[in-house]
Amino acid sequence: MAHHPAQHENFRRRVPEGDNRERLVCDDCGLIHYDNPKIVVGAVVTYDGRFLLCRRAIQPRKGYWTLPAGFLEEHETTEDGARREAYEEATADIRIEQLLAVYNVPRISQVQLIYKAHLGEPSFSPGTESLDVRLFAWAEIPWDELAFPSVHWALNQFREIDGKGPFSPFTNPAGELGNMPPKA
Amino acid sequence: MAHHPAQHENFRRRVPEGDNRERLVCDDCGLIHYDNPKIVVGAVVTYDGRFLLCRRAIQPRKGYWTLPAGFLEEHETTEDGARREAYEEATADIRIEQLLAVYNVPRISQVQLIYKAHLGEPSFSPGTESLDVRLFAWAEIPWDELAFPSVHWALNQFREIDGKGPFSPFTNPAGELGNMPPKA
Repeated sequence: MAHHPAQHENFRRRVPEGDNRERLVCDDCGLIHYDNPKIVVGAVVTYDGRFLLCRRAIQPRKGYWTLPAGFLEEHETTEDGARREAYEEATADIRIEQLLAVYNVPRISQVQLIYKAHLGEPSFSPGTESLDVRLFAWAEIPWDELAFPSVHWALNQFREIDGKGPFSPFTNPAGELGNMPPKA
Repeated sequence: MAHHPAQHENFRRRVPEGDNRERLVCDDCGLIHYDNPKIVVGAVVTYDGRFLLCRRAIQPRKGYWTLPAGFLEEHETTEDGARREAYEEATADIRIEQLLAVYNVPRISQVQLIYKAHLGEPSFSPGTESLDVRLFAWAEIPWDELAFPSVHWALNQFREIDGKGPFSPFTNPAGELGNMPPKA
């Protein structure tokens, strides 16, 4: 952390030597501050054919239903991150099976890694970022109250491959960039 | 960019309300600066059964052979990033087939998305970050001169699934955390 950007006061935007994009560069010591895309990790979690969804207690999209998911932390693996988020948001102990999808939301520089997972037992309750947590049968999923486009994508893509053997992970549906509002 | 950390001078390390980890928080306006893991995108690229490798012109591991790969940029999709890196490092126009692996190197907070790809035609040459670019038959791969553990993993895992139909992406080999030196 010796060179954390917050400790450098004189940043200037310029193209560093050998680079081809403008970066914030510290005028005093030459430190380059890179803005990096952010990684979201989460899971489609099922139990006995039903889907675990969390009703958001926080903005954005407060009150809407989402998959347990959130930002990967430093020094954390993506699978550990997905498990942590399920525990924080739904007090759920999930068992990851495999990667379901990699979604890109380039407008906000976000990469989402969504796993296929299941509950070992039907034990869950809302964490501090959730108003409610429930298991929904497919026909009961509140499609009009889902928080983000990628929640729609992940649930539908899960449905395509569930029980069908090895599959290659999905990406964004053709032409979709993850911008709001979600499509049903 | 109105709230870029470089424009805030009085950061203090504390646990923000509703959070459970220390972050750098701006004393003046409450802006929270998150340190995020970084995403590397790259590809195992083949042509006619041979593997495209780049000899690094830069540190770390200058002079060693690696896959075309590098940091994902802001507002870029992971597939676009993998294609850009192959072009920058090897002047190669690659065709992505599917995701080969997601590797975690938690010590340095790095997540690597490595694709399976091929060259449309055998056209390539070293970019500014490469000393040399070559296609290697499997038996010719310079195993003792590969730059990173994940280069070993990706080549071997590619070999496991090549030509065998749909597969679930690989992760780190059991017990491996991507620390140096690479194992042959």
